[in-house]
Amino acid sequence: MKELSSRAMEGDVRAASRLIRNIEDNVPELSIAMKHIFPHTGRAHVIGITGAPGAGKSTLTDELIVAMRKKQKTVGVLAVDPTSPFTGGALLGDRIRMLRHACDQGVFVRSLATRGAMGGLSKAVGDGIHVLDVMGKDKIIVETVGVGQQEVDIINHAHTVIVVLVPGMGDEVQAIKAGLMEIADIFVINKADRDGANKLYKETRSMLEMGHFEDGWEPPIIMIESVLQPQTFSQSVCELCEKIDAHYQHLVDKNLLQSRFIRKVTTELNDSLHLAIFDKLVESLVNSGEWDQMLQALMRKESDPYTLAEAVAKKYLR
Amino acid sequence: MKELSSRAMEGDVRAASRLIRNIEDNVPELSIAMKHIFPHTGRAHVIGITGAPGAGKSTLTDELIVAMRKKQKTVGVLAVDPTSPFTGGALLGDRIRMLRHACDQGVFVRSLATRGAMGGLSKAVGDGIHVLDVMGKDKIIVETVGVGQQEVDIINHAHTVIVVLVPGMGDEVQAIKAGLMEIADIFVINKADRDGANKLYKETRSMLEMGHFEDGWEPPIIMIESVLQPQTFSQSVCELCEKIDAHYQHLVDKNLLQSRFIRKVTTELNDSLHLAIFDKLVESLVNSGEWDQMLQALMRKESDPYTLAEAVAKKYLR
Repeated sequence: MKELSSRAMEGDVRAASRLIRNIEDNVPELSIAMKHIFPHTGRAHVIGITGAPGAGKSTLTDELIVAMRKKQKTVGVLAVDPTSPFTGGALLGDRIRMLRHACDQGVFVRSLATRGAMGGLSKAVGDGIHVLDVMGKDKIIVETVGVGQQEVDIINHAHTVIVVLVPGMGDEVQAIKAGLMEIADIFVINKADRDGANKLYKETRSMLEMGHFEDGWEPPIIMIESVLQPQTFSQSVCELCEKIDAHYQHLVDKNLLQSRFIRKVTTELNDSLHLAIFDKLVESLVNSGEWDQMLQALMRKESDPYTLAEAVAKKYLR
Repeated sequence: MKELSSRAMEGDVRAASRLIRNIEDNVPELSIAMKHIFPHTGRAHVIGITGAPGAGKSTLTDELIVAMRKKQKTVGVLAVDPTSPFTGGALLGDRIRMLRHACDQGVFVRSLATRGAMGGLSKAVGDGIHVLDVMGKDKIIVETVGVGQQEVDIINHAHTVIVVLVPGMGDEVQAIKAGLMEIADIFVINKADRDGANKLYKETRSMLEMGHFEDGWEPPIIMIESVLQPQTFSQSVCELCEKIDAHYQHLVDKNLLQSRFIRKVTTELNDSLHLAIFDKLVESLVNSGEWDQMLQALMRKESDPYTLAEAVAKKYLR
């Protein structure tokens, strides 16, 4: 494991890929690698891109890679969105599109999926970012779908949060937008050649005007036209790329990187504790047969989940 | 609290509403009420409705209420979907639509939202279902958005799971569909007068043919036209309503209610343990100042989250 992390730190793509697979599978020895890596992390600028399914986040990510490469930045991408073409279920076109980065050593794209445990996904994202970070990537893009609480939590790993909106997705999306309003550093109105883009712009602007910006950064709203108009699309993405850099510079200038870092390590500590405490405890309850006994008691209505949980806490928590 | 739960068990709407608000706020005394209620639960048929935002789940729920009332069943609804018009951010039209049940004592509709802790939402849903159950509701509909893992977890509280699909939402949604494929008991293709409905039907059918149905229930696919065609819409929802009852009858006939019940109590035990163990421990770490010390150590890179979590486990887990 230590050899694997050493090689990843030298930029070895295969070692990094294997580490990320180990993160997905949550192999027990993983902590050896992650402990080894952790002191060397914190160099990269982490950018979270979130929004509803179908908002066009992966097309945007793809073009952001191009724009960042033009600025001589190396780029790592973690695609966490379960609906993203990057993470599978992709149309052929999407796969082909990603191939254009395949020969570029400055780009490393990986999808990330985990099965099971609560909090496991956020921990996997935190670890995945560390791997891309120690590989030496300047910019790390984390693409995630902003619908569930867990998905919104993931965004805590980012310095700069981009929320992608799309016109004409109706009032339901407005509610999502409201939930994401507080965490957005930059808004993108994607597919902005669609009907309703100006209306969405005005709505977003007026929502922003109602908020106040404690850290002195007013989130810009960037209109990005359909990818079917490649010229304007690329130009707008370049503008987005500039804003991303400007936001990072703002964090540096105003001494705000620290507060983002606190947000990040708080999330990581929480995720690690969850694995070491809760998941471990449940595992030992299952192994000792107590878990089954409790289920039986519940099914016979001899006890209730609240009483049982209190008893477990009394027995196993010091 | 015990008085509140007694009144809820007598069907008192205001007491039930207050309990649900207490569940949302996770007030400390809540467990008294829930322990009181638990032995009396397990009578209702719990139906989960899930699907992407904008799939039309709440319109469907609304019409299902009508169909179930025609069959003399009392209905409780928990709207967990953060994008649902029930849970806020609604257009006026949606609110008016719900008003048609306002005078019907056989219908009880509540939204459910929680802030914060992982697993908290699932626990709140479990508790909320118990309240509606002891109120005497025959059918309990839980409406949730099927995108995040947490949201999918919620569906474990249901006996019958309905997955709502919509034509023309592109390949991204197909991936979601894949994730929900395993847990669906009934598929609805909503807005089936749209282009691509037949294609979606065929795709879903061929995905179903690839699976196998251990419990002898082959999930039906029900096409439901737009609400703009009220006649056909209502007819199709009636068909859905029949299938929901048929599925429950199947669970009874094949002795499968037991296995759904195990799924349900497993989820509940997990949620309760999470609150009693993990949330409690984090709270005490925060109160003792250890949480802050750990954050400091992380920020100075004197330690890493993995080492710290192991130390906490050693210190606090017996």
